[in-house]
Amino acid sequence: MRTLFFTIFLINIWTFSSAQDIGMLQSNEKPLVLRSIGSFYVGGEPVVESRVSLNGKSKIIPARDASSSSGHITKGQMYVQYSVPFELKGDFSLVLVHGMTLTGKTYETTPDGRMGWYEYFLRKGIASYIVDQTGFGRSGFDQRPYNDVKAGLEAPKSQPPFMRYTDEELFPAFRIGNTFDKSFPNMKFSLTSYRELSKQSVPFKPLSHADSVANYKNLGLLSSKLKNTIIFGHSQSGDFPVNAALLSTEGIKGAVIVEPSSPFSYSDEEIKKMSKMPMLVIFGDYLDTKSEGSNFTWEMSYNAWKILVERVNKVGGNAKMLHLPEIGIKGNSHMIMQDDNNLEIADIILKWIASL
Amino acid sequence: MRTLFFTIFLINIWTFSSAQDIGMLQSNEKPLVLRSIGSFYVGGEPVVESRVSLNGKSKIIPARDASSSSGHITKGQMYVQYSVPFELKGDFSLVLVHGMTLTGKTYETTPDGRMGWYEYFLRKGIASYIVDQTGFGRSGFDQRPYNDVKAGLEAPKSQPPFMRYTDEELFPAFRIGNTFDKSFPNMKFSLTSYRELSKQSVPFKPLSHADSVANYKNLGLLSSKLKNTIIFGHSQSGDFPVNAALLSTEGIKGAVIVEPSSPFSYSDEEIKKMSKMPMLVIFGDYLDTKSEGSNFTWEMSYNAWKILVERVNKVGGNAKMLHLPEIGIKGNSHMIMQDDNNLEIADIILKWIASL
Repeated sequence: MRTLFFTIFLINIWTFSSAQDIGMLQSNEKPLVLRSIGSFYVGGEPVVESRVSLNGKSKIIPARDASSSSGHITKGQMYVQYSVPFELKGDFSLVLVHGMTLTGKTYETTPDGRMGWYEYFLRKGIASYIVDQTGFGRSGFDQRPYNDVKAGLEAPKSQPPFMRYTDEELFPAFRIGNTFDKSFPNMKFSLTSYRELSKQSVPFKPLSHADSVANYKNLGLLSSKLKNTIIFGHSQSGDFPVNAALLSTEGIKGAVIVEPSSPFSYSDEEIKKMSKMPMLVIFGDYLDTKSEGSNFTWEMSYNAWKILVERVNKVGGNAKMLHLPEIGIKGNSHMIMQDDNNLEIADIILKWIASL
Repeated sequence: MRTLFFTIFLINIWTFSSAQDIGMLQSNEKPLVLRSIGSFYVGGEPVVESRVSLNGKSKIIPARDASSSSGHITKGQMYVQYSVPFELKGDFSLVLVHGMTLTGKTYETTPDGRMGWYEYFLRKGIASYIVDQTGFGRSGFDQRPYNDVKAGLEAPKSQPPFMRYTDEELFPAFRIGNTFDKSFPNMKFSLTSYRELSKQSVPFKPLSHADSVANYKNLGLLSSKLKNTIIFGHSQSGDFPVNAALLSTEGIKGAVIVEPSSPFSYSDEEIKKMSKMPMLVIFGDYLDTKSEGSNFTWEMSYNAWKILVERVNKVGGNAKMLHLPEIGIKGNSHMIMQDDNNLEIADIILKWIASL
């Protein structure tokens, strides 16, 4: 039975979605002229780390995990990758934040090898910054809870889980189709590149309150340095720009909130505070798709954000709800920045920013 | 006592090495003209993952860690970040691989905000590809051994450790000075930016044989697609180019091996095989520095590579040992690509490549 499932499965999707060939990467005929390209970190604090003996074997450099030594490591930093166009066309910068089980890769080349939002925005003359959330990708994470369990100092069940979607779960959860391997009509996410999206997955450790605050603070720190930022959140990081703004709106010009998870409950005072930051909330199509083994639909999140947007506007804010099918753009998945029409959506976003 | 240590410590280093300011990032007056900028993955296979119940709480999307479900995830992929200059000046591509507890960030902007090798090579007109090793950073890793321990299916001690250097250990290990906070004379690594190096650290899981082979294969796959690569290894990945070449030299033009850890033991047959790939092995200064609590010195690694280079040349290979102090370049640390004279060393490397 399992063998049969396997065989059908292999024929269905793995054969026609061959590994991405470098030759598939589409390059532009026009030059992209930059002033600089690079990366840096924001935030992060030196903390004393008492470590534990992880095993008794001799090592080339045993000090790095010896039982007695303690010293400093840095925790809470955020990796920021950036490019600055040679001739800037805007007085603002974009800060692009990815969602759960993903990294900053989200905004680079799409799974089917087309230009991502990062390159597109750069070609539009806008300085763009992609972060890896504090705790993920090149930002690193706190290894201690895992090493403490290994050393027998903490109970195994205390260990934070590392979550991933399977390809089968992600298919309805990201609204590509109800049933794995069968896309919705007009689906804008390229089914043949689905395996390339699967490769983008990294283990996701649920964020503690401290982890969350570190992310908000680091986005605030970055904005206060860059001066005029539009912070993009996606999915699990959808409310990051809002929560950063609640700590301080210094340097934040606005927020683009793409396919956000349900927001926190905010007090009237908090709504008043966040209303100083213009925000655009974007949702794609097929919001009533049910995730596997769950009653969750993105419609629930959509409805919660709609209420938030109304509350913000009621106290004088500038918040906009954009449900793409309502303006005739159909078939967008949860990964709008990777969908076939990603640059069309980018243009809509740029138009909104220009209106601020 | 601990408080005293703390206080002195804070005064000594954390005060004068303030967090990197974006204003510190140095930008170039000359435009960098690219054809494209982006990323993709090489390698990675779909595998069936039977997962385990991680906790009993209800979740918005419980399927992602439900006890009964199983499905596919991708394992073994390698993230590749790239930029291609608009006008190529060479018929080869550079593939830059980082070392232990680090990511591809190694080759971007230096800790003190200067241009890294990545941008420099691009400005020289050379297509450049930075990878995150399979198992690290944006390449993701296999979460299963950790989740199995959490679920009580495996013993805690079976769990792979997540290693990091403390700042105090790394100081002599990376040969910045014998004693923390006191640089060697002529030290080329900027002491005031030491905390920025600390931020680059991510937990390092020792590579299993399968992990190692996945890395070699992915570098080979990348080279066979790009056609003419020079693979850079650093420190723990110093022997990656060699081991990739032992699987296949297709598409590999040469290797630049920077401050490598001690190589494997290779048979005469293997030496003969790798001799088809020209290689440049570079070491910096102060090789006899002892790591904390260990007799290891980089001199041991240097001596082992010297023997390997001699063996390769004896069977007609083109291998070169470059000990920088011997050509009058003094004070380089283990992080040569981030040292003050990083671009001078880059020029030496480019000259060697041009000689092939």
